[in-house]
Amino acid sequence: MARPTIADIAERVGVSKGAVSFALNGRPGVAEATRARILQVAKEMNWRPHSAARALGGARADAVGLVIARPASTLGVEPFFAQLLSGLQAGLSRQSVAMHLMIVEDVEAETEVYRDWASAHRVDGFIIVDLKVRDPRIEVLEELGVPSVVLGGPGRHGSLSSVWADDREAMLSVADYLAALGHRRLAHVAGLPEFHHTQRRMRALRDSSRRLGLAETVSTTTDFSDAEGAAATRALLSRARRPTAIVYDSDVMALAGLGVAGEMGVRVPDELSIVAFDDSVLTRIAHPAITALSRDTFAYGRRLAEVMLALIEEPERRRDVKTATPRLVVRESTAPPGAWQGD
Amino acid sequence: MARPTIADIAERVGVSKGAVSFALNGRPGVAEATRARILQVAKEMNWRPHSAARALGGARADAVGLVIARPASTLGVEPFFAQLLSGLQAGLSRQSVAMHLMIVEDVEAETEVYRDWASAHRVDGFIIVDLKVRDPRIEVLEELGVPSVVLGGPGRHGSLSSVWADDREAMLSVADYLAALGHRRLAHVAGLPEFHHTQRRMRALRDSSRRLGLAETVSTTTDFSDAEGAAATRALLSRARRPTAIVYDSDVMALAGLGVAGEMGVRVPDELSIVAFDDSVLTRIAHPAITALSRDTFAYGRRLAEVMLALIEEPERRRDVKTATPRLVVRESTAPPGAWQGD
Repeated sequence: MARPTIADIAERVGVSKGAVSFALNGRPGVAEATRARILQVAKEMNWRPHSAARALGGARADAVGLVIARPASTLGVEPFFAQLLSGLQAGLSRQSVAMHLMIVEDVEAETEVYRDWASAHRVDGFIIVDLKVRDPRIEVLEELGVPSVVLGGPGRHGSLSSVWADDREAMLSVADYLAALGHRRLAHVAGLPEFHHTQRRMRALRDSSRRLGLAETVSTTTDFSDAEGAAATRALLSRARRPTAIVYDSDVMALAGLGVAGEMGVRVPDELSIVAFDDSVLTRIAHPAITALSRDTFAYGRRLAEVMLALIEEPERRRDVKTATPRLVVRESTAPPGAWQGD
Repeated sequence: MARPTIADIAERVGVSKGAVSFALNGRPGVAEATRARILQVAKEMNWRPHSAARALGGARADAVGLVIARPASTLGVEPFFAQLLSGLQAGLSRQSVAMHLMIVEDVEAETEVYRDWASAHRVDGFIIVDLKVRDPRIEVLEELGVPSVVLGGPGRHGSLSSVWADDREAMLSVADYLAALGHRRLAHVAGLPEFHHTQRRMRALRDSSRRLGLAETVSTTTDFSDAEGAAATRALLSRARRPTAIVYDSDVMALAGLGVAGEMGVRVPDELSIVAFDDSVLTRIAHPAITALSRDTFAYGRRLAEVMLALIEEPERRRDVKTATPRLVVRESTAPPGAWQGD
């Protein structure tokens, strides 16, 4: 069924198209009775302003863009990301703002989509995820001048706004806790080395090692997959002097690590303590349940939406919002190291 | 930074705006040398057609709409839905089509968004999920005349296209398997009663009961949450004659059920067999690992994208695509019932 046009309304009411346009746009030049009749007919015909016409007039797109350069198959796997997107959606939807989503191959394609959507007024703002160490997207978005919020930090996002949590503090709290239990050899199965937050967590563990006088700390980077998480765990547990505790950069990798420990006959937590960044149903239902750095990821996404919407309202006011640091929720996967493992 | 306009290009090249418009739209009336120069300058200035202008000209929105009337907080919880969306995204992104997403309160708000996006040419088509028994959305979408694909069926989707898997066949295969193991008392912790697929699964179990001469089958509907899945399991296991096998309509509920069995001291699979609709990392990592109806959910989402894109190309050709029936993957949570449980 064709969308009713201004001409259709004009014909039905028996006035000029100009009169309909004036009435619908609330401009003077139409008698009150005529205006009322036009609005009534427009309502009956289910007429709505054409978004294209609105956009040409500089109106809002009522959509926020999110472009993701990750394999689509991994998006549904990680509870953190699914929860984050849900919270973001929920926050935007409260203002009837849609999310305009695309998955691309790489960062080059990603910046191409930014240029395209910006010049075509598809969106009112961008959300940028997976902040990298020297992130080429920042400059492109600064140049485009579209309101943009980076998830991640602190710093490294130029003049763009940001919402972030303190990964460094979170990692320090884990190292403190494990050292207090008596662990001296800590390993860290990390995420992608090009991610800003991966580097911050690795640096925090190195600093802890010095500060706490630990015997050994090691970080191994992975692609965040359960397969690489399992492989890294196998390598660590095959060492002559294996670590007594492993910190994983995601719940999915921690679970994979727990599986490898079982497969290699290493008892958790008696012989190995396990801690996960990101808490979810996965860590809670594991046997033993996994000690994890927890936060309300849904609320984190919703906060991101709030900052995005506020920035669209007032683009000149840059925001840099630190959210609550993930806190350690201790479950069954951590304990003092067995006596035979002391140095 | 302001987007370059046709006027900017005209000024730079030193020609009329009309000449620029003709050149950019590939229409005759401009000398070849001038056309080449205009295209060169447009490229240098990073000029792109305004989507609003394109839409007024009847061009594609290059986006597919998905409106979801579910609590946003549940979207990130269910691996099935996250995987489905990922596959859908992946399929659309291959054609550089974006997904335009919104979460709403209820079905009334959902149809309101359909009217809005359709009349505003925001999207080229709609994907409809969570097909209900008498679904009011079907009529609205038929009336709007925008290409629409319903996830679910068979039938109950009017003249709209659909992509579906056979829930009835899947449930029959579970009942056959459990009956062959020797189970005579089956229970079914189902999803929302208003969903079309919930009703089909319940009917399939009732039919199996007659066909296989089972002593008792019962279906309990829930809201799909782990909390209601756990509560339903507690009620079933508190009966004087409790079921020897329970089929759950989702992996999340099956896990919750497994937890309740542990809490009540009912051993799985010795005293209770458990089967889950939907396979995921949750069923694989459970202890014991859960027997599940499995399918490639990511591929299912991608197929949905393909059908949507084909329908946009050829809106007059209605499609009704049956995908592979989920097949049973047997793990550690199913076994013959203990001898003391025989009737």
